Amino acid sequence: MIKIGVDYYPEQWNKKEWERDANLMQQTGVRVVRLAEFAWSKLVPEEGVYDFDWLDRIIEIFEERNMELVLCTPTNCPPLWFYEKYPETIQIGRDGQPIALGIRGHRCYNNKVFRQYAQDIIEKMTLRYGHKTSVIAWQIDNEVESNFCCCKSCSDAFQEWLKAKHHTIEAVNEAYGNNVWSGEYSDWSQIKPPFGSYPLGWYNPGYMLDFHRYAAESIAEYVDFQASIIRKNIPHAMITTNTWMCEHIPDYHKLFKNLDFVSYDNYPTTSIPEDSEAYYSHAFHLDLMRGIKQKNFWIMEQLSGTPGCWMPMQATPRPGMIKGYSLQAIARGADTVIHFRWRTAVSGAEMFWHGVIDHSNVEGRRWSEFKDLCDTVNELNEVEESQITNQCAMIYTYEQDCSLRIQPQTEGFHYYNQMKAIHHGLTSLGVGVDIVSEEVELEKYKVVILPTVYIVNPKFVQKVYDFAKNGGIVILTNRSGVKDQNNNCIMEQLPTVYRDLTGCVVEEYDAIGFKKVRVQDKNGIIYEGKQWCDILLPINAEVLATYMDFFYSGKAAITYNKYHKGGAYYIGTVGNKALYRSLLKDALEQGGINYFENLPETVELSVRKTDKVNYIFLFNNSQNKQKFIFMEQTIEMEPFGMYIHKAIKG
Amino acid sequence: MIKIGVDYYPEQWNKKEWERDANLMQQTGVRVVRLAEFAWSKLVPEEGVYDFDWLDRIIEIFEERNMELVLCTPTNCPPLWFYEKYPETIQIGRDGQPIALGIRGHRCYNNKVFRQYAQDIIEKMTLRYGHKTSVIAWQIDNEVESNFCCCKSCSDAFQEWLKAKHHTIEAVNEAYGNNVWSGEYSDWSQIKPPFGSYPLGWYNPGYMLDFHRYAAESIAEYVDFQASIIRKNIPHAMITTNTWMCEHIPDYHKLFKNLDFVSYDNYPTTSIPEDSEAYYSHAFHLDLMRGIKQKNFWIMEQLSGTPGCWMPMQATPRPGMIKGYSLQAIARGADTVIHFRWRTAVSGAEMFWHGVIDHSNVEGRRWSEFKDLCDTVNELNEVEESQITNQCAMIYTYEQDCSLRIQPQTEGFHYYNQMKAIHHGLTSLGVGVDIVSEEVELEKYKVVILPTVYIVNPKFVQKVYDFAKNGGIVILTNRSGVKDQNNNCIMEQLPTVYRDLTGCVVEEYDAIGFKKVRVQDKNGIIYEGKQWCDILLPINAEVLATYMDFFYSGKAAITYNKYHKGGAYYIGTVGNKALYRSLLKDALEQGGINYFENLPETVELSVRKTDKVNYIFLFNNSQNKQKFIFMEQTIEMEPFGMYIHKAIKG
Amino acid sequence: MIKIGVDYYPEQWNKKEWERDANLMQQTGVRVVRLAEFAWSKLVPEEGVYDFDWLDRIIEIFEERNMELVLCTPTNCPPLWFYEKYPETIQIGRDGQPIALGIRGHRCYNNKVFRQYAQDIIEKMTLRYGHKTSVIAWQIDNEVESNFCCCKSCSDAFQEWLKAKHHTIEAVNEAYGNNVWSGEYSDWSQIKPPFGSYPLGWYNPGYMLDFHRYAAESIAEYVDFQASIIRKNIPHAMITTNTWMCEHIPDYHKLFKNLDFVSYDNYPTTSIPEDSEAYYSHAFHLDLMRGIKQKNFWIMEQLSGTPGCWMPMQATPRPGMIKGYSLQAIARGADTVIHFRWRTAVSGAEMFWHGVIDHSNVEGRRWSEFKDLCDTVNELNEVEESQITNQCAMIYTYEQDCSLRIQPQTEGFHYYNQMKAIHHGLTSLGVGVDIVSEEVELEKYKVVILPTVYIVNPKFVQKVYDFAKNGGIVILTNRSGVKDQNNNCIMEQLPTVYRDLTGCVVEEYDAIGFKKVRVQDKNGIIYEGKQWCDILLPINAEVLATYMDFFYSGKAAITYNKYHKGGAYYIGTVGNKALYRSLLKDALEQGGINYFENLPETVELSVRKTDKVNYIFLFNNSQNKQKFIFMEQTIEMEPFGMYIHKAIKG
Repeated sequence: MIKIGVDYYPEQWNKKEWERDANLMQQTGVRVVRLAEFAWSKLVPEEGVYDFDWLDRIIEIFEERNMELVLCTPTNCPPLWFYEKYPETIQIGRDGQPIALGIRGHRCYNNKVFRQYAQDIIEKMTLRYGHKTSVIAWQIDNEVESNFCCCKSCSDAFQEWLKAKHHTIEAVNEAYGNNVWSGEYSDWSQIKPPFGSYPLGWYNPGYMLDFHRYAAESIAEYVDFQASIIRKNIPHAMITTNTWMCEHIPDYHKLFKNLDFVSYDNYPTTSIPEDSEAYYSHAFHLDLMRGIKQKNFWIMEQLSGTPGCWMPMQATPRPGMIKGYSLQAIARGADTVIHFRWRTAVSGAEMFWHGVIDHSNVEGRRWSEFKDLCDTVNELNEVEESQITNQCAMIYTYEQDCSLRIQPQTEGFHYYNQMKAIHHGLTSLGVGVDIVSEEVELEKYKVVILPTVYIVNPKFVQKVYDFAKNGGIVILTNRSGVKDQNNNCIMEQLPTVYRDLTGCVVEEYDAIGFKKVRVQDKNGIIYEGKQWCDILLPINAEVLATYMDFFYSGKAAITYNKYHKGGAYYIGTVGNKALYRSLLKDALEQGGINYFENLPETVELSVRKTDKVNYIFLFNNSQNKQKFIFMEQTIEMEPFGMYIHKAIKG
Repeated sequence: MIKIGVDYYPEQWNKKEWERDANLMQQTGVRVVRLAEFAWSKLVPEEGVYDFDWLDRIIEIFEERNMELVLCTPTNCPPLWFYEKYPETIQIGRDGQPIALGIRGHRCYNNKVFRQYAQDIIEKMTLRYGHKTSVIAWQIDNEVESNFCCCKSCSDAFQEWLKAKHHTIEAVNEAYGNNVWSGEYSDWSQIKPPFGSYPLGWYNPGYMLDFHRYAAESIAEYVDFQASIIRKNIPHAMITTNTWMCEHIPDYHKLFKNLDFVSYDNYPTTSIPEDSEAYYSHAFHLDLMRGIKQKNFWIMEQLSGTPGCWMPMQATPRPGMIKGYSLQAIARGADTVIHFRWRTAVSGAEMFWHGVIDHSNVEGRRWSEFKDLCDTVNELNEVEESQITNQCAMIYTYEQDCSLRIQPQTEGFHYYNQMKAIHHGLTSLGVGVDIVSEEVELEKYKVVILPTVYIVNPKFVQKVYDFAKNGGIVILTNRSGVKDQNNNCIMEQLPTVYRDLTGCVVEEYDAIGFKKVRVQDKNGIIYEGKQWCDILLPINAEVLATYMDFFYSGKAAITYNKYHKGGAYYIGTVGNKALYRSLLKDALEQGGINYFENLPETVELSVRKTDKVNYIFLFNNSQNKQKFIFMEQTIEMEPFGMYIHKAIKG
Repeated sequence: MIKIGVDYYPEQWNKKEWERDANLMQQTGVRVVRLAEFAWSKLVPEEGVYDFDWLDRIIEIFEERNMELVLCTPTNCPPLWFYEKYPETIQIGRDGQPIALGIRGHRCYNNKVFRQYAQDIIEKMTLRYGHKTSVIAWQIDNEVESNFCCCKSCSDAFQEWLKAKHHTIEAVNEAYGNNVWSGEYSDWSQIKPPFGSYPLGWYNPGYMLDFHRYAAESIAEYVDFQASIIRKNIPHAMITTNTWMCEHIPDYHKLFKNLDFVSYDNYPTTSIPEDSEAYYSHAFHLDLMRGIKQKNFWIMEQLSGTPGCWMPMQATPRPGMIKGYSLQAIARGADTVIHFRWRTAVSGAEMFWHGVIDHSNVEGRRWSEFKDLCDTVNELNEVEESQITNQCAMIYTYEQDCSLRIQPQTEGFHYYNQMKAIHHGLTSLGVGVDIVSEEVELEKYKVVILPTVYIVNPKFVQKVYDFAKNGGIVILTNRSGVKDQNNNCIMEQLPTVYRDLTGCVVEEYDAIGFKKVRVQDKNGIIYEGKQWCDILLPINAEVLATYMDFFYSGKAAITYNKYHKGGAYYIGTVGNKALYRSLLKDALEQGGINYFENLPETVELSVRKTDKVNYIFLFNNSQNKQKFIFMEQTIEMEPFGMYIHKAIKG
């Protein structure tokens, strides 16, 4: 059963409100409530003193109303008495100083004392509530990031990680090319986290990528540490952590490897940008989240009102957004969507991050729309069993992401933005896509898109060749095959390991940054490229489009190479949306994937399937009404409206 | 007698220049000279060694020419020998480190050793010069700001302040809502100044507002400490400090509570912005300064030339600005206007902050204009006895100001900017306004404007209701009644305590930031709103204007509610100047205040009154000539020209 | 013989590549290779362990191919074992903390232990390779900057420098005008480097200029320290250091005073800006470099590919740029041009700073163009003996440069930009210019341009007067004669010491920043001024142009004053290119210098002369072809093409 829930912070409200709140939630149609996320100080007000009575009571209130619960380990925020007693548990910044207290998330993940106290509260909570059937899932900590703490514990952990990987200091020097700038380490003790205020790109790229790998594994290990405590006491617990798009992104695939399901904090924009090239559908994020474990997922925090806290408030969600964005998540594989938050906080730094209910505690427009959402979803019972399967995949890896952040290739280029533009092309054609790691089985797909496979993973390369050999269609882009696993450049002509597959070489490249280049296809249609131009020399490949500007005017910009039963596209520039849409149509046809030519640009189609039924979701991700013909029906959609068609297989 | 003066730094000039300078000042018409502002090192060149001879001599020189003096306590800049001997007296920054020496103002206001040495020099100066009738006023320190020092003394002082206010740590936790993010203090020692580099909005808003209150009281206490020393030795001393618009604004009302008069450093712009919406009259600041003690004030530093020091130089004052801006200050209640500075410094970081006389020591255009100013003012003798009384007031409070800085509500919104736009509306109608605190007696006024009364002061709310009941007209704006005294949101429908008065509720709000919204009044005239839209539901109120954009098109944007004998306007958005002008005309008519419909937009009218005479000032605050009819006379005004009409009461 | 070379880092490549690389260099036409720049750790892998074998071998490889070598002292990058053992050798930042290791250039130039180890490696290298005739030059360190290290050694060195200059603390106080803000030092120990995060303009300008002087002399002393070691072991060594345009610019004239020749790292832009006012020819830098010692120089690093490392990559060099920019350097006095670098690094932070050969190790377009360059240059043998002599000079001084950085005069004003615009005017008229210090003999010239001679050097002033008296033409600009040697303002009417020469005074000035002002000459032609307006009062001078805006419309903007046999122009504003071109034509005519009226704007003429031959270089510094008539020939030039005409004197 698909469920709508809310995040609730009983510790922030007068106990007198609890039952009234629970009653209104029940009337609204809320099925799940997340609790205790930041409540450590309420549970352990002083060293050795525990208070679970309040949590017992609020759980009881929800149980009485047949509502289900998600409990959180409250480890994001140790109580202040703890930091005062153990100041060594505070994270150290890149300046070598403890970060200032007073916000949240100050704990060092690796510190032993912190781990001991974290274990204690998790043990206590799991022993007390583990048996409850009402508790359907556990959330670990909150929005953890890759571990950039520079304390002694973490510095040591980084050195240990390096020893385990490289074994000798000579191997580290070899891997990083430390002969540049006399950078050879002569002792492990010289390898530190990236202290100082330098931009990350000033450091050795091999070192930086290893640091990011360590930082991601460090946070995954922390999450696993918590999961193992929970699982010890509750063997069948469903365990997750709520992830997000943050500064120090985690490796999503490693983070969730040992957890039961992915959950995501989903905040689509409330202000549609005026530049249509800048706009993208949040479906991109949802597809990425579903791809992590290649199965359905949860939203642990969903947009419910104006975001705002330390930054100025944003526009309030336009009518339809609260319901529509939530249904969009379901359409893309979310089985439970918990809204952040029930009622807007009246104190604390997040007091302007608006919930379903306003500060006023009066039910308003957003609550009405949320109730309408609950009503709709509560009638969708059978949908949960459904899964999403696609014939098209797009590869995302933490390593490419980090490496391209460490060394931005050209002004304005972002790994995600290119993926978003390609994703838009697929969406505009009504074609679903799985955004998956290089671990995926490619045989499941007909078309596989590899946006900037910058760092070469030889096993994956072999899989790609096998896929194409057996009839698969591959789409590669600029900056593919550039680097080896050490984040060093490969001493071969680009796209190096992909030369055979693509049937072309990159003669030269031009980092054009914010300039534009015109690209013309064989039909004379002109598209726009930006940021990067690979000047292609086809060896076996067919030229699909050529540049029209600069000294390489007339040279190949996009090629296609038939490869055994399959084939490979190579796109040498970063295109505008029209370029990707056009090229994708070609590729989908090659791959034998059906698409919808005439969907309005903003209408997103997705399908959840059971053995017997296909649930076809059509979402109007737009502020404008849409009217169009789909499967011979005229469909009219309100702004952010969702149309769900149940197709019984027969 | 209205007086023009100059700031003079004899310690910066060769003694040979002193008499020549004094002679030229006398010929120019200067009546007052400010001395000794930064001269501590000259008075106490080494520990225990005092040198007052030079100051004796320069005072004598001015006394011989019948010029009056303002003496300053030189405590802004202790000598370097002092800092070297007592490094603990240096302010500590938010990074926990002593701020680097070498600029100015490095002393910690609260440090005991500093206080002891400050007391010593003040005692010595007051004992030596206290008897002199030539010394007509004392200035304390220079441009003090709210105390953000993070040293141990100040941290302790903050904790003591909190204890005195809240008594128990539990009360602090309750006040700040520290149950959010496990933020409960378990000991006073955990409460520190805001260390770290976080933007202030990341901290708990309750804590931050209390910190600002403490910081403002701390600096007021410092000023009082100095005042008490001066007053002990010179019982009838006239004491002030020169305040300004700074980063860590003081609470002007508290700062001057125990001082004799307000003085202000007045630097109107020399570059009129091209965007007429961005331009405002510096009369706003002058009205604010007059409002602090609701009486006439001084200018301690007045624009005399191009500003410039660490920042690049600005445009030189356009012809008429030096004289005109000085007369504008007088027209708005300044009784003495001291110009910064006599001669431009030839050394030190401020060498490009230009005085009346250039580096060249040659009298130029600015000196000529300044002399013309002196001549004009020296003929205005009887004006000084006059006072300014208005029928319209606007409320300004330190707490709203701080709270809106801590948590910016929407992109581009500034508390002052809204006040300036409203002030412009009044000015364009020739209507004077007092900018006053919530302590004011409202009965004196017919119309009272409450721009963003964001934090609710219950006593003041009662006064507003009483005022309206008795026939007063109130103007409220967006973001009124949002917060309680702890800077927490009030759990009621907006505008909370003002719902009855305004006869409407805010159904919802939309933080539109830099976007624009059209607002149409009952006559079909369209104005522009920005930044914020309160969507109003009139209960009893009449709708004066509605929105024309977004999903709330057609909903009320501005309302008016008759309330007993009076009434209240509510403006849900931040208007352009035309909107405020139009609405203010309506409000002034309701309040029975006369206004001038046909003044040119840039001509500012103000009136200083004695029992017998009204001095009507008309100031052309513009680079363009103006010609218009006023009281049946045709008046022609030069750029920045002033016309003074003496109306004898009959 | 003019030579083309490459920078090569054998330590970064597999030994197997060495001979292949050397062979290809030889075939390409490379004559010189620079080695060992960052190789300290390879030469001394651990304390007391030396390894010169690899360097012996690579030198041998090049010697076998008759290639010449530049050896570098590798002192920019001590090995990490050294920093670990002697952490006191790490530079201290303005925050008082050691800068984080992991980039390059971390050593404190003044630290004694560092100096001892630097001496050791330099001794070892010079003793081992000093006798080799293949080693034609030695480079000291790499791209040194003025010494802003804030460590104890450097703080002490600064104090010693001050004692040597000022003798007494009273003299320092007097020089800096420390009576401002009670800033008198009472002890030398109070004088520190500029700690803190303040912009430099907040400090006392006298102190800051002295600090810059010390910082420049400190780095020059460091370079001399190395030079003396080299010279001790190799009496006839040719010694240089490679300089550049950096954050903490060195005093180029002092830096190279005791070195044998200037070498420069030359990276002209690969993206021609669209705003033609923003574009300038890199010939400006080359003329500046040639002017340092007033003789020919080397390029030690020359553009070979896309720059990129911590910043995003730039555009790839357009066809013709690699060859053209290198020939441009030769045309402006470079005798050897070493390209950075042979092959692009595959590891380290600079891996995207592209060399002649790509990562792929495949010869591409850039290599072909580079080979073409080598072929061309290897046929220019006799050119090397030639020198460049000009009739026009422009004065550049480190002190003006620093002082104008410390106190930016107006928004958008940069010392260099004004010089570049004037330089453009000369270049567009085919007139060569020497950019030289105030030490130059002015008699060599007919026209001397003094852009913003802000700080007055009395000896130089006398030389300027003598020059004009004897018939020389002088061009002065705004902000001349402002400051004395202590960086304090001169107490006279501007342009102070230049009043007699210019025959005018600056009545007043207006810092207009980004605003524009129209300036009209006697023929009614209108030019554009910006940033600054000196309002001129001609005493004896003739008015050449007047302002057309602001309150000084009609007042003089540009004047000319006949002075004995010569004369002086004064330009009160910062002009656009057209203004300078027009005025320079006038000045060149006055000075009797021929110019070319009809050269295309982008075609640059320069002449290298021997006793018998003039080599006339015409360089098309543009992406467009040019066709024009020169000396009665029709000349057609490709983008970035060079035409060399050998004129035998007769």
